[in-house]
Amino acid sequence: MTTYDHFLSRAAAGMQESAIRKTGSILAQHRDIISFAPGYPAPETFAWRDFQEIARELLSGSDASVLQYGPTRGYRPLLEQIAGIMQNRGVASALDRLLVTTGSQQGLDLVARVLLNPGDVVLVELPTYTGAITAFRNVQAQMEGVPQEADGIDLAALDETHARLVKAGRRVPFLYVVPNFQNPTGLLIGLEKRRRLLEWAAKRDVLILEDDPYRELYFEDCTTEADVRPMKADDLEERIIYLSSFSKTLAPGFRIAWIDAPASIAVKLEMAKQAGDLCSSILDQRIVYEAARRGILERQLPMLRRHYQDKRDVMVQALKAELGDDIHGPDPRGGFFLWATLPQAIDADHLLDRAVRHGVVYVAGSAFFVNNAGGNLIRLSFSAPSHERLREGASRLASAIREELAAPVGPPAGASTRC
Amino acid sequence: MTTYDHFLSRAAAGMQESAIRKTGSILAQHRDIISFAPGYPAPETFAWRDFQEIARELLSGSDASVLQYGPTRGYRPLLEQIAGIMQNRGVASALDRLLVTTGSQQGLDLVARVLLNPGDVVLVELPTYTGAITAFRNVQAQMEGVPQEADGIDLAALDETHARLVKAGRRVPFLYVVPNFQNPTGLLIGLEKRRRLLEWAAKRDVLILEDDPYRELYFEDCTTEADVRPMKADDLEERIIYLSSFSKTLAPGFRIAWIDAPASIAVKLEMAKQAGDLCSSILDQRIVYEAARRGILERQLPMLRRHYQDKRDVMVQALKAELGDDIHGPDPRGGFFLWATLPQAIDADHLLDRAVRHGVVYVAGSAFFVNNAGGNLIRLSFSAPSHERLREGASRLASAIREELAAPVGPPAGASTRC
Repeated sequence: MTTYDHFLSRAAAGMQESAIRKTGSILAQHRDIISFAPGYPAPETFAWRDFQEIARELLSGSDASVLQYGPTRGYRPLLEQIAGIMQNRGVASALDRLLVTTGSQQGLDLVARVLLNPGDVVLVELPTYTGAITAFRNVQAQMEGVPQEADGIDLAALDETHARLVKAGRRVPFLYVVPNFQNPTGLLIGLEKRRRLLEWAAKRDVLILEDDPYRELYFEDCTTEADVRPMKADDLEERIIYLSSFSKTLAPGFRIAWIDAPASIAVKLEMAKQAGDLCSSILDQRIVYEAARRGILERQLPMLRRHYQDKRDVMVQALKAELGDDIHGPDPRGGFFLWATLPQAIDADHLLDRAVRHGVVYVAGSAFFVNNAGGNLIRLSFSAPSHERLREGASRLASAIREELAAPVGPPAGASTRC
Repeated sequence: MTTYDHFLSRAAAGMQESAIRKTGSILAQHRDIISFAPGYPAPETFAWRDFQEIARELLSGSDASVLQYGPTRGYRPLLEQIAGIMQNRGVASALDRLLVTTGSQQGLDLVARVLLNPGDVVLVELPTYTGAITAFRNVQAQMEGVPQEADGIDLAALDETHARLVKAGRRVPFLYVVPNFQNPTGLLIGLEKRRRLLEWAAKRDVLILEDDPYRELYFEDCTTEADVRPMKADDLEERIIYLSSFSKTLAPGFRIAWIDAPASIAVKLEMAKQAGDLCSSILDQRIVYEAARRGILERQLPMLRRHYQDKRDVMVQALKAELGDDIHGPDPRGGFFLWATLPQAIDADHLLDRAVRHGVVYVAGSAFFVNNAGGNLIRLSFSAPSHERLREGASRLASAIREELAAPVGPPAGASTRC
C-alpha cells in the first residue's frame, strides 16, 4: 500500500473542491432537485439547429484542419471575429493581444500562473467569483477582499487595503473585478467609478483583471449597453487584462472563451497555454467561429436578454410572494444571479441540507467570501430552470427557510456544513 | 506606456515557446513546405462520416446536456468506456481513478502542478517529449536526464542519478517515461525492463508518470500487442500515473485524453482541473464516447496500424535511397516518429534554415534534450504527409544536407538558430 501525501506539491496540499462544482454531485444524486446553484445557461435558448447544420458542414471531411491540432493562440478567423466583437464593445483590439482559452476558467488560471508567485496578494471584491478564488489559490496566492458599494468596489477601502499590503512588503500585481452583473452579487460598477479605477491602477502601478462573461445579458428594462462599457475600452495605459466568453451567449459545452491582454503579457499567456493544453478544441472553435460569422451570435443576443429578464421577473416575484420580507436583495439588472439576504438567524451553509431535503439547492454566500463572511447570504441562479421550476423552487426554498426559522435549536456558533 | 516585466511571476519569466509549436509559425508562412515536424495524425484516416452522423444526432437538441457544463471528472459514460479500454490494455481501472483531460498535455500539466514544487527534480529519458519538458518547466521544476539503451532507459544510470539527487537533498517525486514508441526516439521499453522499473520505483519510493499516446499504433510486422503492455497493468503498488489519449486514434482536434491515477491523487488532479478549465469540451467528449460505444474506435485501430506502417516503410526507403549512409537510426516499430542521426559535421539546428529554404521542416534533436545534447539528431514525423510527399520531403531534406555538407564554413561552435 503506497501513501501519497508526501508526493503532493505545496500547491496541491492547499487545493479545495469548488463549492459550486460540489453541488453537481448533490444534483447527480437527487434527480428531481431544482437547482439554483450553478450558473448554467438555459439550453432551450441554444441555436441547436444552426449548430447541427454547421457541424454537418465542418465534418464533411473537405477541410482536414477541423479535427487536427491547431495554433495555441486559437483559430485565426475566430480571433478576427473576436477582434470585431471587442470593437463592438468599444475596444480597439489586435491579434497580438488575443488568445482563445478553454473557457474563461482557463483564462483565470493562465493569468494566475503568469502574474502570481506563491504568497502574492490579489485584491478581490467582497464577495467574488469562486472560480477566480480557486484559480488564485491554486498558485498559492492569497486574496484580500475589498467591500462593494451599490456602484461597485469601495475605492477608498481599495486604496487603503493596497497601501497596507505594500507597506507590509507584499507583492500585489493585480485587482480582480467583474464589473458587469458581478458573480455573485449581480452588481454593476458605475461608469464614473470605472474611470476612477483606471486612474487608481495607474497611480498605484497595479494591473486589473476584468472578467466580463455576462455583459451581453443586460436587462433592457433598467440597463443600457452604455452601462456595460468595459473598462478595457478606456484603458489607454494598457493595464487591463480582459476576459470574456461564448459560454453564456452560445453554449458552455463548447468551452470557448478569450483573453485580450497587453501584447507582451499575451505572449506569456500563450506559452502557459502551450504547456497547459496545446490548443482549445478545434471543432468547438470552428463551430463558434461559424456561429459568429453567420450572424447567429448577433441574432441570439436580444432574445437572450428577454429570456433572462423574464426569468428574473418570475424569480423576483416568486421569492417575494413566498418569502416576503424574509428575503431581500437588489433586483438583478442583468446576468444569471440573484444575491439574497436571509433573516439574520439563518446560516446559509447550515440551511443547505434542509433545502436539499426540500428539493432545492443554491450556493451559500460563504463560498464567495475570502474573509469568512457570508453567513445569511445566498446566490440564486435563475438562468436555467423553467418559469414553473423557478416558482416551485422558490416555494421549496421558502418551506426550508420557514422550517429552519422554526427549528428549536440554531446551528452552533462557527459550525458549517459547507456544501 | 506601461512596462510589464515586474508584473510577471517567476514561473512566467522562465517560460519558453515550444520548438515544435514554433514550427507551426514557419508552416503558416510557407504554404508549400513539407512538414516532418509536428506529430500530426493523418486526417484522411479520421472517421469523418461517422463523426458527422454522431454530431447530427447529438445536436438535435433532444439532450440538453450535450452543450451544457459538465462534471470536471468527465462525462461518466465516457469514463466507463475508458475503463473498458484500460481493461483491454490489461489494467483493472475504476471510476475513482479516472479523469478526462483536455488533451494529454493537460494531463502532464495537472500532474506537474499536483506533484511538483519549484526546484523539485523530474527524472526524464534522454531525449524526452518536449511537451513534458515545458509542462514541468512551467512549474519551475528541473529535469535530470537519464540515457536510453536499445530497450529503453538505462536502469543503472537511473539509480545513480536518483541517488546523487537524493544525497544532494533534492526532492524527486517521479520519473517520466514514454514506454511505447517513445517521442522522439520511437523506442520501446522492453518487458523485462518494465518490470524492473516498477521494482526500482518501489525500492526508491518514487512514482512513475507513464505517458502512452501511441500504444495502439504498433506495426504488426515487427511488434505485437504483448510488447506494448502498459507498466500500469502490473502496478500492484499503485505507483503509476498513466496518461493516454484519443488524439492519435480518433482525432486530436477533439482534445480528449485521460489520466488513470491512484484515487487519492486523482482527487487532487480533479481539483487542479476544476480551477484549470472546469471541464473539457462536452461536445467532444460526447462524440468520442459515441465513437467508442459504436465500435468505430475499435474498427479504426487495425486500419491505423497498417496506414502508419506503410508510411514508415515509404519514409525509411526514401531516406535510404536519398541519403544512404548519411542518415541512420532504428526503424520505427510503431508510432509517428523516425529518430535519425545525421553526419557528425551537421548541426541540426543550423541546418533547419537551409531545410526550410528547400521546402522541408523537421524538429532538431536539441529540443528533446534537457542536457543541451542532440547536435546532429533530428526527429522526422512520417504520420501526416502522403506517400508522395514523404518521398519528396526526403529528397528535399537530402538536398539540404548535401548542400550543408558542401558549405565552405561550418556553423560557429555553440551557435544555434533553434527553431
